[in-house]
Amino acid sequence: MGRIKLIMEYDGSNYHGFQIQKNAHTVQAELEKAIYRLSDEQVTITCAGRTDAGVHALGQVVAFDSGATIPGDKWTPALNSFLPADIQVLESRQVKDSFNPRFDAVSKRYIYKIYRRKNGASIYRNYSLCNTEELDLKAMQEGCGLIEGRQNFRAFCASGSSAKTFERRVIRCQITEKEPWLCLEIEADGFLYNMVRIITGTILQVGRSKYSPEYIKEIISLRDRTLAGPTVPPQGLYLVVVNYPPGVL
Amino acid sequence: MGRIKLIMEYDGSNYHGFQIQKNAHTVQAELEKAIYRLSDEQVTITCAGRTDAGVHALGQVVAFDSGATIPGDKWTPALNSFLPADIQVLESRQVKDSFNPRFDAVSKRYIYKIYRRKNGASIYRNYSLCNTEELDLKAMQEGCGLIEGRQNFRAFCASGSSAKTFERRVIRCQITEKEPWLCLEIEADGFLYNMVRIITGTILQVGRSKYSPEYIKEIISLRDRTLAGPTVPPQGLYLVVVNYPPGVL
Repeated sequence: MGRIKLIMEYDGSNYHGFQIQKNAHTVQAELEKAIYRLSDEQVTITCAGRTDAGVHALGQVVAFDSGATIPGDKWTPALNSFLPADIQVLESRQVKDSFNPRFDAVSKRYIYKIYRRKNGASIYRNYSLCNTEELDLKAMQEGCGLIEGRQNFRAFCASGSSAKTFERRVIRCQITEKEPWLCLEIEADGFLYNMVRIITGTILQVGRSKYSPEYIKEIISLRDRTLAGPTVPPQGLYLVVVNYPPGVL
Repeated sequence: MGRIKLIMEYDGSNYHGFQIQKNAHTVQAELEKAIYRLSDEQVTITCAGRTDAGVHALGQVVAFDSGATIPGDKWTPALNSFLPADIQVLESRQVKDSFNPRFDAVSKRYIYKIYRRKNGASIYRNYSLCNTEELDLKAMQEGCGLIEGRQNFRAFCASGSSAKTFERRVIRCQITEKEPWLCLEIEADGFLYNMVRIITGTILQVGRSKYSPEYIKEIISLRDRTLAGPTVPPQGLYLVVVNYPPGVL
């Protein structure tokens, strides 16, 4: 009884994103259905980051209130027996009634996976962006370094965003190679709409030598979305972890 | 005009295997349909290894005869424009009219991917076997070494096989770790039905300390399927490459 926090993994390939929508297959709807089947309660869950259609999660955090007498850690196996194979609870516990998975987060970490090969990919097409062009990894690493810090990321925010401020602190932005994968990792205290996908698209332009790494500085200072690179597709993106200060749990 | 050889990649998740069957979605049917749409010819393709439902290919080899005036290398982009996203031609060329992708092969290489983690997997569930138990990698490597050589693999052959002889030469059998993946790689001059999946199931029993590595020798010498480990599921299996002697192409 009380507020339950779950850490979740899901394969976003077959979902229209996390958030519930009419007539669409969503992660939230599947999860609320599983809770209903388990505890006979109609709950509304909130999440740390509303992932878009096709985006995956390795560590999404959600919370909901339940009157059921299920101990915190028992929600994991119980819900997994009702959830489809592409959604899974990794961890469950009871938390303070005031816990909010979105507003209490101090930072979130995403990765974007790039699959380097000569041909396009049929395997992993739903789990990465396939890149067939030459890439200058060193230039990309240099570009990533310029993303770090407290800066105004308006140039990396998709239009239609309801953000009130564009300043965010990027704690880490780095790209590492693990043949044949490139993995762009970005941790920040908050993200603007499509921010990781636009940053990745911009870093890829650097890798293709279409932009110099230093041009990132100019894009940031001019705050102009049209200067940044394209928004890369959702399927390479994973929400990896959400961090909370100990006091809120 | 003549015999065309293709090297193919496909994601087997959504197919009932390679070989054409009535009322089933198969890779062969998709490929023959694409050839028909491209060249207006109804061909019958043959392949090097008839992968089962859910098994993937990174380098399947197929051949067919065509009267179309499409140069050998142009079949690649042409067919890819008609094929679904989960099937792809990597390479095409014209070969000798006598080339047979199955009987001319001198060896084939498969890999089986094991995903090591504490929880089950929702992402990658169609591309690996998820293992949540402790595994003794050293013992598994030792067990793999005992699979190598020209031996009678009857104990590693599923019932219902039409094989006339059970002797095969395993050129290489090794398991390597690339966190969080274990990759069992096996190359042989031929494979019995479900041989890789039964070998992998047996090596996993060694990893779980249910069998000693040396027990592999006994299983082989007793030629008894019931002594070997279980057949692991298809989704971790990939046909990687098929090798031919230069003269046949």
